[in-house]
Amino acid sequence: MFPFSQETHQFPYPDYSFMPHGYYYSPYFWSNGVFESEERYSLLAQQRLTFVLVHGSWADAHFWDNVAAVLRSRGHVVYTPEYAGHGKDPNKDVTHAMITKSVVDFITRLNLSNFVLVGHSFGGTVIQKVAEQVPDRIKRLVFWDAFVLKDGESVADELPPQTRQGFEQLRAGSKDDTIMLPFPLFRDLFVNTATLEEAKQMYAGVIPEPARPLFENLELKAFYDLPTPKSYVYFYQDNTLPQGEGFGWNPHMSTRLGQFRLIVGGGDHFTDTRTRPAMLAQKLYEAGRD
Amino acid sequence: MFPFSQETHQFPYPDYSFMPHGYYYSPYFWSNGVFESEERYSLLAQQRLTFVLVHGSWADAHFWDNVAAVLRSRGHVVYTPEYAGHGKDPNKDVTHAMITKSVVDFITRLNLSNFVLVGHSFGGTVIQKVAEQVPDRIKRLVFWDAFVLKDGESVADELPPQTRQGFEQLRAGSKDDTIMLPFPLFRDLFVNTATLEEAKQMYAGVIPEPARPLFENLELKAFYDLPTPKSYVYFYQDNTLPQGEGFGWNPHMSTRLGQFRLIVGGGDHFTDTRTRPAMLAQKLYEAGRD
Amino acid sequence: MFPFSQETHQFPYPDYSFMPHGYYYSPYFWSNGVFESEERYSLLAQQRLTFVLVHGSWADAHFWDNVAAVLRSRGHVVYTPEYAGHGKDPNKDVTHAMITKSVVDFITRLNLSNFVLVGHSFGGTVIQKVAEQVPDRIKRLVFWDAFVLKDGESVADELPPQTRQGFEQLRAGSKDDTIMLPFPLFRDLFVNTATLEEAKQMYAGVIPEPARPLFENLELKAFYDLPTPKSYVYFYQDNTLPQGEGFGWNPHMSTRLGQFRLIVGGGDHFTDTRTRPAMLAQKLYEAGRD
Repeated sequence: MFPFSQETHQFPYPDYSFMPHGYYYSPYFWSNGVFESEERYSLLAQQRLTFVLVHGSWADAHFWDNVAAVLRSRGHVVYTPEYAGHGKDPNKDVTHAMITKSVVDFITRLNLSNFVLVGHSFGGTVIQKVAEQVPDRIKRLVFWDAFVLKDGESVADELPPQTRQGFEQLRAGSKDDTIMLPFPLFRDLFVNTATLEEAKQMYAGVIPEPARPLFENLELKAFYDLPTPKSYVYFYQDNTLPQGEGFGWNPHMSTRLGQFRLIVGGGDHFTDTRTRPAMLAQKLYEAGRD
Repeated sequence: MFPFSQETHQFPYPDYSFMPHGYYYSPYFWSNGVFESEERYSLLAQQRLTFVLVHGSWADAHFWDNVAAVLRSRGHVVYTPEYAGHGKDPNKDVTHAMITKSVVDFITRLNLSNFVLVGHSFGGTVIQKVAEQVPDRIKRLVFWDAFVLKDGESVADELPPQTRQGFEQLRAGSKDDTIMLPFPLFRDLFVNTATLEEAKQMYAGVIPEPARPLFENLELKAFYDLPTPKSYVYFYQDNTLPQGEGFGWNPHMSTRLGQFRLIVGGGDHFTDTRTRPAMLAQKLYEAGRD
Repeated sequence: MFPFSQETHQFPYPDYSFMPHGYYYSPYFWSNGVFESEERYSLLAQQRLTFVLVHGSWADAHFWDNVAAVLRSRGHVVYTPEYAGHGKDPNKDVTHAMITKSVVDFITRLNLSNFVLVGHSFGGTVIQKVAEQVPDRIKRLVFWDAFVLKDGESVADELPPQTRQGFEQLRAGSKDDTIMLPFPLFRDLFVNTATLEEAKQMYAGVIPEPARPLFENLELKAFYDLPTPKSYVYFYQDNTLPQGEGFGWNPHMSTRLGQFRLIVGGGDHFTDTRTRPAMLAQKLYEAGRD
């Protein structure tokens, strides 16, 4: 691969974009045991993909801003639909079906197809239901530290008893059937690897979450019949749910997907969208590519 | 953040120290997907904290020497109390209560308050009991691959049957009710990532451990009523206990803390105190900061 | 350690090779929290070892080519025996005993002793049986994401029901009692971190695997009486088996070894043999050294 010349870098796949000059590797660079690393991938040419990124609870479409910017800079097309009860929507009285409809309508209105559908956290339940409605448009499903519910389950069913009880108290104490995360809980469970400043900046964007969809039992028989390829991205510092002893993202919920591609990273539930968007973008790409 | 000027680097928190000139980042540096990394944090200004570091079994206060040096170099205040039956104490006939008293006396004699109390390994049981006695002095509890015992449990109760049996045999074979780790066990379970030289150097500091406190059942009802914030630092190459199937540091014992901040690193049980003290110091800082 | 002089670098172990000039560290380099890293080990002098590397299913001795090259470049002696039913052997009608015999014969013919015996995947069951037959020749057993079967078990017994059923269908559909991996399964479970090109290159070397040995129940009482030191290398992106809830490499099967040295890396089941051979070689070295 060194020295660089256009001829020797021809890829057999026409939909590949090339990396900019100066960002190629010599074979020496990544075979001497010191510089070889997972990061080398981020410098290689990437297959061009279309991503539809579906955020989770206590977030809106801006959750993806930095990650989407990195993905676009690498040649991908990125959509970040916002759904009912979130962002600037003043109506908090929403159902899971309304949320799903927001995303399905977004996809059909723009006539999107052959895309990688990514769900984060609660967004996992959303892409499960979206996949049931527009399966033929989806190239691959990617769950990033996301709920994969069993048929008939609710998100609340996957919370440890103590957490579920806490959420029920916060819900009961609200005027509009929402749940607001107290800062100490957000700081320790959602942005545990962040600095205090980063935590505060991210908390400034958190607004009360409609409670009902978190407690709705979802019918998911059709989801479990879909042959759509699936991936799971797991960040090992994510502690919003305990990881093991009957709870957690991976392997507890991920294995419900049957055959799936696992990609693991070192982040937490929210922080890396702000502080390491390129790392996160790379993990989503590794999960989504052919 | 580039170019550097004092004005644009003002932090809103007066107790923050500034990083030295030349160690700041340009936004480009950590947003291009190559250089962005967890290590960037170690170069950012740190909130000044006071740490009280409590060692575990087969160790004394020198266990923390390198880590304490790094923490101090970053502006923190660090104390490393040694407790009964350890270090130069010739008396091995100690109880868990005597060990706890050593640390409580250290804290009250120096009139320490608002500190981060860190326990490693067996030291986890010590900070559980210390926290019961001086809760108002403690800012946050940090368990690093440390026992979090249930009310009424002993350390021995958390050992796999084979390990417990081995410890009981070593105890029975001693003249003074102590347990000495054979080198092969120490090398494979405590310093598995070390070179042989590093392993031997560290083993040279290991002396027989008083056995009784490891088999004492501790009353911990008061601990589980404490509202003190808690963190757990887990190193994923630590194999002193099997991690799963009903045993281990995280999530098996960590989740007993209820809501806690998880920080994960790549080390083992002992080695990084010698070979990567800055990494370990950074993880303890991330666990301890506000 | 700086500046360099031959005298100050004398190691007490005569069988240690020295690193080349220019590859030593200053203490500053690895104590400032930025450059200190696990990779530093790969630059330190290594104890010279003899490795016998035993591949797994859907692979042959070439599986180890790049890793063996790295290990040899660091001064180690490496053997990569191929066994019955694999590589150029046209006979697919083999038993587990025939496979074991291939490796035992290789070892005795070359009169190898004091070597580190490494098994990958299905190769774990092979080194379990080989160790029973030539225990005195083996310095240490290293399992890398490898089966550690209980006495009386088969590999199939350790597969999740869905995977086992899939393998039984593929077996039933073959003409010669073999199992061929479909590309989508290979791509998502065996080389999940690879690029599509790397996945295709590696798949080009995959041929149908004799099915019978995967379903044979192995008598392993003698194995569990061996005092041979043991290590387990676990790569946390390896998802050929789900990791938890009663399945998986570590801790599910690794803990059957009793006392063992754990080494963890970030790779998957196959990819790193091609893309990060130096990282993999280093992990095998860390698992195998004294």
